[in-house]
Amino acid sequence: MTVQVPDNISAFLDTATPELWLDEAQKRIPEMLLDHANCELKAASTALGFLYRYPDRGALAQRMSRLAREELRHFEQVRSIMEDMGIAFERLSASRYAGRLRDAARQDEPHKLLDLLLIGALIEARSCERFARIAPRLPEKLGRFYGGLLASEARHFEHYIAFAKSECGVESTEIDHRLSELKAIEAALIFEPDTDFRFHSGLPSAA
Amino acid sequence: MTVQVPDNISAFLDTATPELWLDEAQKRIPEMLLDHANCELKAASTALGFLYRYPDRGALAQRMSRLAREELRHFEQVRSIMEDMGIAFERLSASRYAGRLRDAARQDEPHKLLDLLLIGALIEARSCERFARIAPRLPEKLGRFYGGLLASEARHFEHYIAFAKSECGVESTEIDHRLSELKAIEAALIFEPDTDFRFHSGLPSAA
Repeated sequence: MTVQVPDNISAFLDTATPELWLDEAQKRIPEMLLDHANCELKAASTALGFLYRYPDRGALAQRMSRLAREELRHFEQVRSIMEDMGIAFERLSASRYAGRLRDAARQDEPHKLLDLLLIGALIEARSCERFARIAPRLPEKLGRFYGGLLASEARHFEHYIAFAKSECGVESTEIDHRLSELKAIEAALIFEPDTDFRFHSGLPSAA
Repeated sequence: MTVQVPDNISAFLDTATPELWLDEAQKRIPEMLLDHANCELKAASTALGFLYRYPDRGALAQRMSRLAREELRHFEQVRSIMEDMGIAFERLSASRYAGRLRDAARQDEPHKLLDLLLIGALIEARSCERFARIAPRLPEKLGRFYGGLLASEARHFEHYIAFAKSECGVESTEIDHRLSELKAIEAALIFEPDTDFRFHSGLPSAA
C-alpha cells in the first residue's frame, strides 16, 4: 500500500526518521504495537493534563478533551489488534524520548504552557511521520490501520501550534525561536543510539 | 418536561435524593453546573485510573476507555452550556461524597478492585437519579440536556456491577453483602447535613 508523509508534517519536521529505525520496527511489530498502545494512553493523559493545569482556558479545554477522546479511541483500536494477534498488554514507563522532551520544558509561565504545547506538537507530528513511514512495511491489514490513524491524527500538531500562538501571549518570533530549539532536541533524540526499542526511540543500539 | 428515574436505577439505589437537595439545586443552577462539569472530568479520570492500575485486564480496559470518552464528551457539553450562560469554569476539589466513598475502599486486592467498582456503580447510579429528579425543575433547554445525559449514562452503573462480578473472583453473596455496606455509607452521605453545595452533596446546611 502507498502511504505518504503528509506535506504539512514533512514541512513541520526538519528531519525524517532514519531507515535504521524502520528496519528495526519492521522486525519488532509486537513491541511496536505495545508501545504504541501505551503512547495513545499517555497522549490522552497529557491532553487531560492541560485541562487540569489550565482549567480556566475554555477553548484549550474543549480541544484537549476532544483530543483525549480521539487518543483513547485509538488506544482501544490498538489493544483490539493486539488481542487479535495474541500480544499481551502491559504498562511501559515513559520513553527516553518523551521524558527528555518534557525535561526541556521551562517551569515559569507562560513559558511552561508554551513549551508543553510545542513539545506536544512535535510528538504528534513525529508519531504521524512514523505512521506514514512504517505503514508500507507492515502486513496489509495493519498497514491500512496505520494509514487510517495518520489521516485521523495528521492535524493534531497544528492544534497544538495554534494554541501556542493564541494562549501564551508570547511574540511569534520568540515562539519560532523556541520551536527551533525544541526541534533540535527532538532531532537529536531521533538520531542518538537508544538501547530500548520504542515507537519514538532513536537509532537501534545493542544494550 | 417529564423525566423519570429509570426502573433499573431506582431498583439499585435503596434511597431517593431528599427534596431539600432538589429545592437547593433549583436555586443554585450555576454552582450545580460547575460541579457537574468537574464531576464529568473526575469520572473520566477515575475510569482511566482503572486502566493504569489494572493494565492487563483487557475487557475492563476497553470498557473504561469508552466510559472515559463518554464522560469527556459530557464534560465538553456542560462546559459549552456554562459558556453560553456566562458561568466561569474553575477546578473544584473532590467533594466530601466522593472522598468519603473512596476512603471506604479496602486496600488489599481483590477487595480494592471490588470496592472501587462498587463505589463507581453507586456514584454513576446516584448521578443518574439526580439527573432525572432535577431535570423537570430546570429551564426547558437545560432540562432536555439532563434528560439526554440520563439516557446516555443510565447503564453505566451496570457495567461497573458486571465487572465487580466478573473481574474480582469474589463470591456473589460476599459482593452483595459488601454492596449493602457501601449503599449504607452512600445513603448516609446523601442524608447528612453538608455545608458545601455540590452535585452529590447531602442535606443543605448553613456553613
